[in-house]
Amino acid sequence: MRRIAFLLVAFATVAGIVASSARASGHADEAADTIFGIKIPPGYRDWKLISVAHEEGSLNDIRAILGNDRAIKAYREGKLPFPDGAIIARLAWSYVPSEENNKVFGRAQSFVAGSATNVQFMVKDSRKYAATGGWGFAQFKDGKPDGEAKLNTCFPCHVPVKARDFVYTRYAP
Amino acid sequence: MRRIAFLLVAFATVAGIVASSARASGHADEAADTIFGIKIPPGYRDWKLISVAHEEGSLNDIRAILGNDRAIKAYREGKLPFPDGAIIARLAWSYVPSEENNKVFGRAQSFVAGSATNVQFMVKDSRKYAATGGWGFAQFKDGKPDGEAKLNTCFPCHVPVKARDFVYTRYAP
Repeated sequence: MRRIAFLLVAFATVAGIVASSARASGHADEAADTIFGIKIPPGYRDWKLISVAHEEGSLNDIRAILGNDRAIKAYREGKLPFPDGAIIARLAWSYVPSEENNKVFGRAQSFVAGSATNVQFMVKDSRKYAATGGWGFAQFKDGKPDGEAKLNTCFPCHVPVKARDFVYTRYAP
Repeated sequence: MRRIAFLLVAFATVAGIVASSARASGHADEAADTIFGIKIPPGYRDWKLISVAHEEGSLNDIRAILGNDRAIKAYREGKLPFPDGAIIARLAWSYVPSEENNKVFGRAQSFVAGSATNVQFMVKDSRKYAATGGWGFAQFKDGKPDGEAKLNTCFPCHVPVKARDFVYTRYAP
């Protein structure tokens, strides 16, 4: 009897830990996009840096491209195609002139990251996403996934870099 | 006797591991700068992202600001001053238009990271660097530290943001 009680307590403890881990990961309950079924990967903001970029025009953002460990390893070893499980994240922020920095530099030359615009993910799964080069594509704004119409435009734009496994960003040394 | 032989082998093995770890860290033998005595921190390229920026003018670079775990924790908790041991790294690359990207966007709008220009570090040690707000400053180009004349210009430029513990970069959400 005492043994059963102990097991019940142990089970409840483990269940509690699992539940609170799910909450701590932050995105466990968030919606997946409807076409590739991708959710925001927990902890992506902690991933290692692949490179940075700036887009003018209607995007007008400054961006960082991060990778999970599998993606970073493949980049550093120069191995293509990327292995299943590799995920590349593209974070973007509004492109904002920094008056504070400009004052110090003595001229208008400094641009920094403002508020977050959206975050994109490329998720490698060569079987699940065979129809789109082995990659699933997702974009989230304020935690909400973009719909099918938007996501259907991703893969066609990545076809020109098929030779680099459909990935534009190169690793910044 | 066999015991002594075993200990000698064990010692030699450990010494070998330590020596090869030092080599693997890549920067163990590199020079420190002459004014703050800072060496390139091993593994800084793996640190988490604080933010990104672009500088026009003679710098003409695109940059990422990374932090070691102590720096990232302080940023995320909004705690000032930064604790001793916090290190902020500023990596910069030449600012290069991407014809490949522009072709896909249909207009000249895309700028990416080219070759590395230099890397800077701010190292917090409130006692060692008490004369410069608790921060040591270093800049390395191709692994070689910049000299005193250059580094003496660092701190004066950071004084305007004394209220933020002399750190310009804000954490990108």
